[in-house]
Amino acid sequence: MAGYSPLPLRRLVEQFAALPGIGMKTAQRLAYYVLSMPEEQAKEFSEAILEAHEKIKNCTVCQNFTDSEICGICSDENRDRSVICVVETPKEVSAFERTREYNGLYHVLHGLISPMDGVGPEQLHIKELLARLQDGSVREVIMATSPTVEGEATAMYISRLLAHLGVIVTRLAYGMPVGSELEYADEVTLVKALENRNRI
Amino acid sequence: MAGYSPLPLRRLVEQFAALPGIGMKTAQRLAYYVLSMPEEQAKEFSEAILEAHEKIKNCTVCQNFTDSEICGICSDENRDRSVICVVETPKEVSAFERTREYNGLYHVLHGLISPMDGVGPEQLHIKELLARLQDGSVREVIMATSPTVEGEATAMYISRLLAHLGVIVTRLAYGMPVGSELEYADEVTLVKALENRNRI
Repeated sequence: MAGYSPLPLRRLVEQFAALPGIGMKTAQRLAYYVLSMPEEQAKEFSEAILEAHEKIKNCTVCQNFTDSEICGICSDENRDRSVICVVETPKEVSAFERTREYNGLYHVLHGLISPMDGVGPEQLHIKELLARLQDGSVREVIMATSPTVEGEATAMYISRLLAHLGVIVTRLAYGMPVGSELEYADEVTLVKALENRNRI
Repeated sequence: MAGYSPLPLRRLVEQFAALPGIGMKTAQRLAYYVLSMPEEQAKEFSEAILEAHEKIKNCTVCQNFTDSEICGICSDENRDRSVICVVETPKEVSAFERTREYNGLYHVLHGLISPMDGVGPEQLHIKELLARLQDGSVREVIMATSPTVEGEATAMYISRLLAHLGVIVTRLAYGMPVGSELEYADEVTLVKALENRNRI
């Protein structure tokens, strides 16, 4: 932004630029767009930010985002209460829900173990997961963290914690993404896809 | 978003998705990011939107965005008051200011003549431009609208209005963009670049 931009405009641009994946040019475009909105629409936008921040909290059971005490999934009588899918963030819950194939429960860790970023197990919602396993109603815990260094480390750490609880701990399958080109697959993925090959 | 997403979260996602160039996936990512912000930061973001919308208005002289009666450029004693660069939106003012080469004044039309979109000359800030030319202090008006159909039409329309005022009306040069590849240039641009060739 040129030095002549008025301060409230510069501030708004900075706010947009602070969002992930939004560069200065896009931030400027968005700020100008906000200025061009009708007053009413700008108010709605502003209020949506505050309202979401005020009303959305973590479900006391699974730690997913909710605007009530217990989220819609945890309180749904039709879900299979014997399976818990452990994910990093609420985004992954949405991803699984979009498949319409998974009917169990979730547990959101809100992060992964990452010593590089100073995130240890105690900062994740792991003890809340352990608490859910105490009554013996859960048969299987699916570790659905990403197949990255941090995701693997977190999955390993938690699976060891659960080893003595008599619960089955599983991990998402590795392999070729559906629709991907074999020639672009990395070696590690190819090896995993080969190892885990199935009869057709 | 899955049907289980709480309403305030869905609302925030919709607000982001309504911004230009922001799809549903990015909107979701941004909404989750806002939820992860500290309360204070979310408030600042929310207020920046309202504040910008309330405090930013058009400069009474050049119609550029400003938070005072007359903008920083129009009130700057060091600018050349004999040249006015006519642009479509405040974005183009920023673009020219970034060059640090132009030291004249601006006039922001806030749109282009576009019969297809129902925008006629009377919706643009053209009469304010005419008013600035009455005292004879302006020597040159640079038509710096985009080289598009609407930009050309607007430039032609305004230049005809100014014809009898004794002011020099100029247009930005057409030619090859610096750093571009000749083989990808369109024919019209190539013809213009050829016509306007300079001695080296």
